[in-house]
Amino acid sequence: MQFAATLALATAGLFLATGASAQSFQKPEDAIKYRRAGFTVLASHFGALGAMANGRAPFDAAAAARHADVISLVSHLPFAGFVPGSDKGETRADPQVWTEQAKFKAGAEKMQDAVGKLAVAAKGGNLDAMKAAFGPAAQTCKACHDAYRKD
Amino acid sequence: MQFAATLALATAGLFLATGASAQSFQKPEDAIKYRRAGFTVLASHFGALGAMANGRAPFDAAAAARHADVISLVSHLPFAGFVPGSDKGETRADPQVWTEQAKFKAGAEKMQDAVGKLAVAAKGGNLDAMKAAFGPAAQTCKACHDAYRKD
Repeated sequence: MQFAATLALATAGLFLATGASAQSFQKPEDAIKYRRAGFTVLASHFGALGAMANGRAPFDAAAAARHADVISLVSHLPFAGFVPGSDKGETRADPQVWTEQAKFKAGAEKMQDAVGKLAVAAKGGNLDAMKAAFGPAAQTCKACHDAYRKD
Repeated sequence: MQFAATLALATAGLFLATGASAQSFQKPEDAIKYRRAGFTVLASHFGALGAMANGRAPFDAAAAARHADVISLVSHLPFAGFVPGSDKGETRADPQVWTEQAKFKAGAEKMQDAVGKLAVAAKGGNLDAMKAAFGPAAQTCKACHDAYRKD
C-alpha cells in the first residue's frame, strides 16, 4: 500500500506538472479568491506536517501521508490565479509578481520541488527524513512571501 | 499515460477515502477559513468542468483530466473543518450541520461519490460521459447547500 500510494503520488505529480490549472476566471476577484483559497489549504496541510516535524504534534504516519498527497497537488494550483489585472483588490500580492514573472515562476517551482520532496519523505513514514525536508520547504515559502507579499 | 493517470487517481482516491484530513485547528476561525477555502477551490475546478459539460467552454481533455484530479482529492477536504464550536463567525453553515451529523456526513459522501464518478468520466476523455455525470454531481452540491447553507 505504501508503495502503491507513493507510485500514485509520483504519477499524479508528473501529470500535474505538465500544465497549470486552466480554469478561466470571470472577474479578477474570482482569481484572487481562488489563489488565496489554494494557499490557505496548502498552508493548513503544510502546517500539520510542520507540527509533526517540530514535535508540536505526535507523528502519525497515515495522517502525514494524507497531508503529503494534498500538498503535492495543491502546491501547483494557486499560481493559476495570478492573472493579469488581479493585482488590485483583496490581495497582498506585490505588483512585482507581474513585473518579475520569470523570477516569480522560478520561486513557485522551487517551492513545488521542495514541497514534493517533503511529501515523498512524509510518505516514507520516516520522521527524521520528514524533519530534514521540512526546513528547506518552509524556506521556499518564506522566500516568496518576503519578496512578493505585502505585509 | 491516460491509463496510468486513471490508475493513479483510483489509487489516490482509495487512499484518501480511508480517513478525513487530520490537521487540528488552533481556533474555530481557522477551521472555518480552511473549509471555505476548500470549497472555493473545489467549486472553481468543478465549475471549469461544468463549463465544458455545458458547452460554455471548449472541451479540453488534458485540462479536464487535471480538474478531475483536483476535484477527486479536494472533495474530501473541507469537511474536516466542521469542528465543534465552528458554527459561529464568518460562516453560512446552518447549525443543523452539527445537530444532524449523520445526515450531513451522508450528504458529503454522496457528493464525493458523484464527483468521483465525474472525475472518472472526465479522465476518460469522453465529453458525453462527462455531460452525463455532471448533472448528478451538481445536484449533490445543491442538495447540501439547500439543507445546510444559510443564504
